[in-house]
Amino acid sequence: MTKVLSDKIRVAIAGATGYGGLELIRLVSQHPQAQITYLASVSSAGKRLEEIYPHLAEIGSFDSTLQPLEPKAIAKAADIMLLALPAGKSAVLIPQLLDAGMKVVDGGPDFRLHDASAYPRWYKFEHPAPELLKEAVFGIPELHKEAICKARLVAQPGCYATAAILALAPLAKAGLIEPEIIIDAKSGLSGAGRTSLSLPYHFTEAAEDVSAYGFPAHRHLPEIEQELGLLMSGAFEITFTPHLVPTIRGIFATAYVGVERSAFSVQRPVEPTILQTMKAFYADSPFVHVSENLPHTKWTSGTNHAFLSARVTPDGKRAVLLSVIDNLGKGLSGQMVQCMNLMFGIDEAAGLEARAVYP
Amino acid sequence: MTKVLSDKIRVAIAGATGYGGLELIRLVSQHPQAQITYLASVSSAGKRLEEIYPHLAEIGSFDSTLQPLEPKAIAKAADIMLLALPAGKSAVLIPQLLDAGMKVVDGGPDFRLHDASAYPRWYKFEHPAPELLKEAVFGIPELHKEAICKARLVAQPGCYATAAILALAPLAKAGLIEPEIIIDAKSGLSGAGRTSLSLPYHFTEAAEDVSAYGFPAHRHLPEIEQELGLLMSGAFEITFTPHLVPTIRGIFATAYVGVERSAFSVQRPVEPTILQTMKAFYADSPFVHVSENLPHTKWTSGTNHAFLSARVTPDGKRAVLLSVIDNLGKGLSGQMVQCMNLMFGIDEAAGLEARAVYP
Amino acid sequence: MTKVLSDKIRVAIAGATGYGGLELIRLVSQHPQAQITYLASVSSAGKRLEEIYPHLAEIGSFDSTLQPLEPKAIAKAADIMLLALPAGKSAVLIPQLLDAGMKVVDGGPDFRLHDASAYPRWYKFEHPAPELLKEAVFGIPELHKEAICKARLVAQPGCYATAAILALAPLAKAGLIEPEIIIDAKSGLSGAGRTSLSLPYHFTEAAEDVSAYGFPAHRHLPEIEQELGLLMSGAFEITFTPHLVPTIRGIFATAYVGVERSAFSVQRPVEPTILQTMKAFYADSPFVHVSENLPHTKWTSGTNHAFLSARVTPDGKRAVLLSVIDNLGKGLSGQMVQCMNLMFGIDEAAGLEARAVYP
Amino acid sequence: MTKVLSDKIRVAIAGATGYGGLELIRLVSQHPQAQITYLASVSSAGKRLEEIYPHLAEIGSFDSTLQPLEPKAIAKAADIMLLALPAGKSAVLIPQLLDAGMKVVDGGPDFRLHDASAYPRWYKFEHPAPELLKEAVFGIPELHKEAICKARLVAQPGCYATAAILALAPLAKAGLIEPEIIIDAKSGLSGAGRTSLSLPYHFTEAAEDVSAYGFPAHRHLPEIEQELGLLMSGAFEITFTPHLVPTIRGIFATAYVGVERSAFSVQRPVEPTILQTMKAFYADSPFVHVSENLPHTKWTSGTNHAFLSARVTPDGKRAVLLSVIDNLGKGLSGQMVQCMNLMFGIDEAAGLEARAVYP
Repeated sequence: MTKVLSDKIRVAIAGATGYGGLELIRLVSQHPQAQITYLASVSSAGKRLEEIYPHLAEIGSFDSTLQPLEPKAIAKAADIMLLALPAGKSAVLIPQLLDAGMKVVDGGPDFRLHDASAYPRWYKFEHPAPELLKEAVFGIPELHKEAICKARLVAQPGCYATAAILALAPLAKAGLIEPEIIIDAKSGLSGAGRTSLSLPYHFTEAAEDVSAYGFPAHRHLPEIEQELGLLMSGAFEITFTPHLVPTIRGIFATAYVGVERSAFSVQRPVEPTILQTMKAFYADSPFVHVSENLPHTKWTSGTNHAFLSARVTPDGKRAVLLSVIDNLGKGLSGQMVQCMNLMFGIDEAAGLEARAVYP
Repeated sequence: MTKVLSDKIRVAIAGATGYGGLELIRLVSQHPQAQITYLASVSSAGKRLEEIYPHLAEIGSFDSTLQPLEPKAIAKAADIMLLALPAGKSAVLIPQLLDAGMKVVDGGPDFRLHDASAYPRWYKFEHPAPELLKEAVFGIPELHKEAICKARLVAQPGCYATAAILALAPLAKAGLIEPEIIIDAKSGLSGAGRTSLSLPYHFTEAAEDVSAYGFPAHRHLPEIEQELGLLMSGAFEITFTPHLVPTIRGIFATAYVGVERSAFSVQRPVEPTILQTMKAFYADSPFVHVSENLPHTKWTSGTNHAFLSARVTPDGKRAVLLSVIDNLGKGLSGQMVQCMNLMFGIDEAAGLEARAVYP
Repeated sequence: MTKVLSDKIRVAIAGATGYGGLELIRLVSQHPQAQITYLASVSSAGKRLEEIYPHLAEIGSFDSTLQPLEPKAIAKAADIMLLALPAGKSAVLIPQLLDAGMKVVDGGPDFRLHDASAYPRWYKFEHPAPELLKEAVFGIPELHKEAICKARLVAQPGCYATAAILALAPLAKAGLIEPEIIIDAKSGLSGAGRTSLSLPYHFTEAAEDVSAYGFPAHRHLPEIEQELGLLMSGAFEITFTPHLVPTIRGIFATAYVGVERSAFSVQRPVEPTILQTMKAFYADSPFVHVSENLPHTKWTSGTNHAFLSARVTPDGKRAVLLSVIDNLGKGLSGQMVQCMNLMFGIDEAAGLEARAVYP
Repeated sequence: MTKVLSDKIRVAIAGATGYGGLELIRLVSQHPQAQITYLASVSSAGKRLEEIYPHLAEIGSFDSTLQPLEPKAIAKAADIMLLALPAGKSAVLIPQLLDAGMKVVDGGPDFRLHDASAYPRWYKFEHPAPELLKEAVFGIPELHKEAICKARLVAQPGCYATAAILALAPLAKAGLIEPEIIIDAKSGLSGAGRTSLSLPYHFTEAAEDVSAYGFPAHRHLPEIEQELGLLMSGAFEITFTPHLVPTIRGIFATAYVGVERSAFSVQRPVEPTILQTMKAFYADSPFVHVSENLPHTKWTSGTNHAFLSARVTPDGKRAVLLSVIDNLGKGLSGQMVQCMNLMFGIDEAAGLEARAVYP
């Protein structure tokens, strides 16, 4: 039985001093049906949050003291834990949290891939809890809502994966695309996090620059393959190239796919059908908006919203799918809260209605 | 009698397509005790808001059709109007709104200055409603809370004025500073608004640039003089230099003042006393935070919060006061909502609790 | 006979107040073998350049008075004219300059396409000098050096076209790629020029944003098709998507191509062979640098240099080609000067040796 | 005897991998009368420069192998050494270079202050060569040209100091200002260098932010006091507040000074006289431009130029002086080359004529 309180969901947050944790704090502290009851930080336990983030001075709505990562204390204080930890850190912790009766949403990669053998290859560690990989639900509510509602453990996808999968899922499921898929993604710099300092992310290096990195084998590729594999009818190939652009937030994913010509006709023209298929797929989602408008990452800043569009080449042979999200919103902390909402049977949009701070 | 509804304050917004109006829409649409009931736009009446701002697609919580600026229709639909219009536009409109029984918060300069003769000089128009200049309350709640609570008409200060006055008011009132005041302000580019296009605000010109403009006689100077004049005991002089820096939002005001040496002593050292005086002045404000931490504009982004600090030169002769706000938050739309809250007797922080979207 | 002076090439520049013209002024004013002898501006004739660009105050090395666009006066004053004018403006002017015995490098699109019928379709004007379209040489020296050396009229390609063609030409010529080509390009904002103001290019809108625009049928597509058509052996298809990213300068082109598998073998592995083919193609160019390093647009800022690299997917089926240039350098004014150098028989790198102002 | 070669000045550069060193490399490699003959790096000796800065691939005009910091080898290879090292590093090295007969321009602070006792206080080290502090010439040619021409050792001022001194020197010398001076400076982020990584300089923290730091006692203050002390007739006080703004390069210094009223009259009005005094002071400098135009940091990007202006308050009591430079240009490496030119009796502008890469 879910420990839903008479009043509010009691939420523990791990990795509170990183950008993902900070965004979780912002969202949960404003959530009408949830409250922060435990803030955990490995590196800063004992400090107060406002020592690290002075803009949270006098926030008052929760105890800002950072606690150690102790499963028993956490389970006592909270109904659910939202984790924003580096790869490999939560794989050990989460079994203990589950055993103590908690629900968990993991923002890291440790439970995204169903295949345990993928972890040594992509993340350089042997998975310590392979049996949970089957139980863990991939945390995109627009694809796995029913399972998330019942889940103990939800694994938030990578930010690139969320953007790409949102664009491709409707057409993959409808059998409208050919099996050669190209994803060209452009990301802001907050995706690199706050904890580790690195020259390429310094202002002087990153401003006035565009670059590509981490391909042809980026870590988000196997989860995109896993999820599209559930929707595509046959074999397929993905080429994925991530780029860095000088914004703080935002992912812009441009996907190029061949159009499955047999699925279209004069009565069923390519571009309108593709857009209509995408709209229908997301008709019930309060967060995914499909339209003819070419999207801007600025539309998503600070929010859990995604904007999609599509164009087809004049010869009708190839579709260009566009998908924008905030990498810390729908790409991480926002979607984690969306999953939490579903896991507790409340409105999935609770606490997430805000639109972008614009401009 | 205030037309407080049993449920929510009915709010009309003018200038809905500019950045100030857009921020009002964002804030009121999330406000737990207020609702948008009328969106007015001179330039875009008849259109829907999402045609101009696609990121508001499917927002649903209010009618997004932009209406003409018709006082009678507005008075019928709303209890209060929040106006974000260019200088000179609201001076004619507001008397009609007041006559129709509405409350008004004016985001423009038309009712900020109590002296009608200042308008031809600073704003190049003869004021059409000089009798209202005495009634209008200068809209900084931390200075004029009582009057705002009773006001029909509140005039929101300029963004630079808010930042500068917040820094200087406590020391001016306490008689701790000498009469020669220097204000060096740095502003992001959203202060220029969205409506009029101008080369200096183009990305290619503004990015990677810092410049000064509009001095020694910027329009925000007389309102700073007016408000400090209520607090200073004698004559004083202000030198005010605004600068543009390549950020979207944020004002950083650095004020330099001589310290009134007779007010301090070994038992009453300069820097701690100054900080303590500032803290005490804002002890009851949920939005103005004073500390030893040197503030960052990023702390305020998208919020109604202000962060203040101070340093004193080693010889104890001069104080440097630092003040940061979001020019569209505490500098405009946020503070307008704060005033509205007070005018309707609800918690001044209602709908404004959010902290910065960070980073 | 070329009017090579005993000392320096006399250069006229048209469109001197736009960003392309300004860059031409910067480059020619520092050129050891050329000198500015005529600055033409339609909009600002009669003014002095430093009234528009105060950073050129006291420059002294040429007469900064802006002159009208008068072919006879220009031909008297200069040996060559470099034009940075909007589409359609130079098509009328250039025949007169040629008739007067001048050489011409046109920075605009009016003479890029050999097929006159393309102009009504892509540029909405009937070409007034179709006979010159055959004579005009497409101005990428790495592809057409010999023709440029002998040319009276050179047409500088579009910035996107230069970036894309540089990446694709070596493999297209070597028959190593399949005929389905995808070009995903990211551009800084100076490509939009200085003359026309537009909301999407305002700092507040463009900063912290990424967007796509102008596809599936961007104007640079036909020139890419024209040039690759000279190199590819059969029919081919290009999908081209330009994006805007918040930098002032820089184009990053990512091209995705299928690998022609029959051209490779164990002895001739895909990725090394592709890189080697690209290196060999540009072995004699002082400006195009091919390496294993993933390139950054910052490396090209303010220069005529291009940096290329490539990666192949693990299955060896698809290549990702990366190409970076400065849109105002190799993408416009720098390459125009490079062509000018060749047209006058001097070192193609003269005046263009500078590396990026970094960071 | 100066070892001027028949052809070119042989230049050694220390700290070649930092931003200051990189800018020295850029400038000297393009210098018509100087050549790089020794590149030294403590941290990267043995590597090639293009391994660290790939945009310098195939540069070819000098040997790009980074050498250790060995005075004898340096003295053999070069006539002068330009050092861009952290505080304390060159104080030990420079005596050896001088003993070996070299000329030296030090970009760091080790020889800026004439008073040895200032070093423990401001830089936390006991000066190892106090006798050289008297010989070292403060490297602003507009103030100390004659001494620089004869110097063995020139100490480049800090970037803030150069900007502030250029603004204040003419009026200080002419006795036109009162002794209370306020300097409010705004700097881009490259001033922090490349070597040490620091969270506040990460893109995500620094973009969309303005902050103040390092006051009331910044290290550049004593050198400003030292230099103005040579020009002011009596005691004076400086308040100096540096700010960080999100640009890569550029310093904007705004100085506030009381006007010495006795020096002005109806026949000698304040603002024109001040501007005229500044213009006259810099009449012979090819790099310092004084005008009525309010300056922009963008005008200086990548150059050795400075732009100054001034405004006076309507009551004529206070002047606002504006000064912009590139912190890596006139603020560091550019001015070092300017000094080198003078030390070798060549045109001080040689190799430094370039204007900004704009926009």
